[in-house]
Amino acid sequence: MKYGIVAFPSKKLQDLANAYRKRYDPHYALITPHMTIKGVFEANDQEIEEVAKAIQKVTTKHDPFELSVSKVGTFAPITNTIFFKVVPNDALLALYKDLNHDFFGDEPEYAFVPHITIAQKLSSGEHDDIIGQLKMVGVDHTETIDRLHLLYQLEDGSWTVYETFRLDEDN
Amino acid sequence: MKYGIVAFPSKKLQDLANAYRKRYDPHYALITPHMTIKGVFEANDQEIEEVAKAIQKVTTKHDPFELSVSKVGTFAPITNTIFFKVVPNDALLALYKDLNHDFFGDEPEYAFVPHITIAQKLSSGEHDDIIGQLKMVGVDHTETIDRLHLLYQLEDGSWTVYETFRLDEDN
Repeated sequence: MKYGIVAFPSKKLQDLANAYRKRYDPHYALITPHMTIKGVFEANDQEIEEVAKAIQKVTTKHDPFELSVSKVGTFAPITNTIFFKVVPNDALLALYKDLNHDFFGDEPEYAFVPHITIAQKLSSGEHDDIIGQLKMVGVDHTETIDRLHLLYQLEDGSWTVYETFRLDEDN
Repeated sequence: MKYGIVAFPSKKLQDLANAYRKRYDPHYALITPHMTIKGVFEANDQEIEEVAKAIQKVTTKHDPFELSVSKVGTFAPITNTIFFKVVPNDALLALYKDLNHDFFGDEPEYAFVPHITIAQKLSSGEHDDIIGQLKMVGVDHTETIDRLHLLYQLEDGSWTVYETFRLDEDN
């Protein structure tokens, strides 16, 4: 089964992202707006219990972190994905590191660019049409993330939450 | 903000439900297949922390329960909703009671008919066309549910998981 780890931002930020995703993101219906902390990895029913315990161990020793989005970015020309760029900070990077290096699943292939996707699978024409305007409108929001979610994927591509992990659960 | 409490069944049962929901349920994209344990209730950001603590207290003292679906049912003529009927058992009913009577939100208006919706908002014609066949195909599956999820609703109607609660967390 396919699993992943994400942070869901507040309703306010999700509603804002969805206003764009509704039009520009074919994954709109498969998952609500999120920041991926650990990309897709495979695990069976036994393994995932072990993984869940390991995530618990990691999240317990990390504090809640600040999620701050301050501009719209794009991965073009690699992919025509447009996103709210999340400003990296030490707390987020340390959490990412603990869940991706010497942890379950493969090592990440790319550098970590924390983001919340608002548009993807666009044609180059569509991308070029809207990127200027989206960048100009921009985004400016800061909040605290105090939990992560372990998800699994159904056959139709949609994602269900398996478990929630509070950061700094002891306090 | 609107909240609700559900149990998500296993991937296997969700995939089966989605095969029908994809065609027959306009809420297909808003939430993955689920059994509602506590229907929609309102809470603000402060209240929900209290509610979460109270749910935790309830789930800690309940054991995992058996979810067994053995036939297809319908709420017609009240609503044209078709569902996998969940066989009630003492564990499930006791859990339902603790989360709905003398708990946050209003007392339920209807008796608890545990189910997993597979079709809704059908016209009477559509309903009558498919109900016979769905009943004949039927369903027969049993599994253990060991966690509940507290969800909140976004402006577009979709649901995000706020927190997961393991049943019998102490063991």
